[in-house]
Amino acid sequence: MRAYRSACEAIPAPDSRAASQCQALLDAKTKPRGSLGRLEELACRMAALRGEARPAMPSKAVLVMAADHGVVQEGVSAYPPEVTGQMVANFARGGAAINVLARQVGAWVTVVDMGVRFPVKSLTGVKVHRMGPGTDNFTKGPAMSRETAEEALDVGTRLAVDMAMTGVTLLGLGEMGIGNTTASSALTCALTGLSPEEATGRGTGVDEEGWRRKVQAVKRALEVNRPNPEDPLGVLAQLGGFEIAGLAGAALGAASRRVPVVLDGFISSVAGMVAARLCPQVKPYLLASHLSVEAGHTRVLQELEQRPLLDLGLRLGEGSGAAVAFGLVDTALCILHEMATFTSAGVIDTGR
Amino acid sequence: MRAYRSACEAIPAPDSRAASQCQALLDAKTKPRGSLGRLEELACRMAALRGEARPAMPSKAVLVMAADHGVVQEGVSAYPPEVTGQMVANFARGGAAINVLARQVGAWVTVVDMGVRFPVKSLTGVKVHRMGPGTDNFTKGPAMSRETAEEALDVGTRLAVDMAMTGVTLLGLGEMGIGNTTASSALTCALTGLSPEEATGRGTGVDEEGWRRKVQAVKRALEVNRPNPEDPLGVLAQLGGFEIAGLAGAALGAASRRVPVVLDGFISSVAGMVAARLCPQVKPYLLASHLSVEAGHTRVLQELEQRPLLDLGLRLGEGSGAAVAFGLVDTALCILHEMATFTSAGVIDTGR
Repeated sequence: MRAYRSACEAIPAPDSRAASQCQALLDAKTKPRGSLGRLEELACRMAALRGEARPAMPSKAVLVMAADHGVVQEGVSAYPPEVTGQMVANFARGGAAINVLARQVGAWVTVVDMGVRFPVKSLTGVKVHRMGPGTDNFTKGPAMSRETAEEALDVGTRLAVDMAMTGVTLLGLGEMGIGNTTASSALTCALTGLSPEEATGRGTGVDEEGWRRKVQAVKRALEVNRPNPEDPLGVLAQLGGFEIAGLAGAALGAASRRVPVVLDGFISSVAGMVAARLCPQVKPYLLASHLSVEAGHTRVLQELEQRPLLDLGLRLGEGSGAAVAFGLVDTALCILHEMATFTSAGVIDTGR
Repeated sequence: MRAYRSACEAIPAPDSRAASQCQALLDAKTKPRGSLGRLEELACRMAALRGEARPAMPSKAVLVMAADHGVVQEGVSAYPPEVTGQMVANFARGGAAINVLARQVGAWVTVVDMGVRFPVKSLTGVKVHRMGPGTDNFTKGPAMSRETAEEALDVGTRLAVDMAMTGVTLLGLGEMGIGNTTASSALTCALTGLSPEEATGRGTGVDEEGWRRKVQAVKRALEVNRPNPEDPLGVLAQLGGFEIAGLAGAALGAASRRVPVVLDGFISSVAGMVAARLCPQVKPYLLASHLSVEAGHTRVLQELEQRPLLDLGLRLGEGSGAAVAFGLVDTALCILHEMATFTSAGVIDTGR
């Protein structure tokens, strides 16, 4: 059986008893009940997913997958495809936003070349799982074959399982790929029924004309490929990207090992949505970190029944918002581990 | 001259040139222009306030002022006044939420007894500047005299200036005081014209009947004291608290030394509003950390022209939200200091 399908079957249901026990521990702390709002919810959610009332402080990693997209031939991006490979080199040297943000919260960054068109040679610190030199132009046919999509899903699943075995207990999903907001918009249209105009944003910063080209490319992609929302693997192959497929697989692999998955912005959340369509059991494991300014993100988060933790006007990708949200997960669990109780501190508890 | 008045006169205007230089530095980083949204705004705001294009990583402290409130006689709180002193002891021992949250971001916590009714004896690590054993019941007359209000303002100003001289470059305002949401609601009504029903929330968790008692107490306070919004010192004396006055003074002291002030929730923001009424020059130095669930907070932040960074459903106080937001200030400045530029990383820059 495919690795991603085995992972799907292995995903445990969240442990609601651990969540209740966690809330009881929080209710004994020296503060009014529930007064730490979403931080308390977050602690209990970690408890449910990890399956223990007092989950340990997480070992955090961001999995950044990079790939190129044939659709850039349609003039949909403000940046040339050379930038994908250059940014992978930047990740490897530790100079990109995600490196800085991950360092600040003590998270690892694992970078994977899933199919960069112009890779920088002889980099250390980049895992290579190339599905090809970028996808095909999906305005003219499918982005990749079903087999390639399954292979990319398996790569992500295996990597995430391996990271879990290596000690990671909280996984962020990041990406880099010039053209990948266009792929994500097309996937969003196909899977949610949103119109190309509603699902298409400015990406890294295209102007009005570039935005119209993106919308047209999405429209043509839908006309040419006629995606069937009941066949998520087919949709992924027709309209996806290697990094998007890899991240969807990673979500399944992580969840199969009780590792909660922190989504970043639009693209990363679309990968989460693809995973949830392939395997609904993964859904509770997906945590929305922030609300991107990218047009389709709100709808994708609705599909995933997620309320983002942060709303900071981010639109960078790379896992940047996930890394910022890691800090809030740490905060929530520090509260659980370190705060005094009414009893230990000798503070009157009125039960409110 | 009163210390708080001298501080007001010494507050420098923000340095808009430093802010522009900071934005230019951020625009050279390997990311689309502006793609880190509010984190970029935050870095530039720190630059403007600190008066340098590349402000150093901040030395952070939360000033937690505690005091009791005569209005608790009206049955406005879910907790008895003994809890104020017990929580001060909890702060001193490092077991409260603010201790945990501050430790997580490497911030100091400075605790001040501004007038706790039942202080725990012989604590180390608590500064004592008692204005009395809590305020008078402001449903029967002013909470304190104008002289006492000015004295409390001066205490806060001197403490903040001293902290700035000791190296603090970012100050959070926290508070503890059973009954102090009622005082804050009364101040909000007097200074903004909001009705008692609109300005009054559930505080630490009163039930429906307790909420009605709070609203009645605020109404009576306004009838008995007839506050004049053109006289903010008078309003503070009639309806404030020792800790609220102290924090307002601290905001002025910090701003006079170019130290940005991170507001916490409703009470702390009301202290910021009082400071801004006494001295409009302080306003740019006040940063809203989060949106509290407490009813009047939204209006107070509108008055201060502040958009909160976080919305996590917090209603704890103590400076808890300010400490969480400290993490975002660190994040914003890490980006500024640590990210590679397009040139240094060899990444194509399209100027978008």
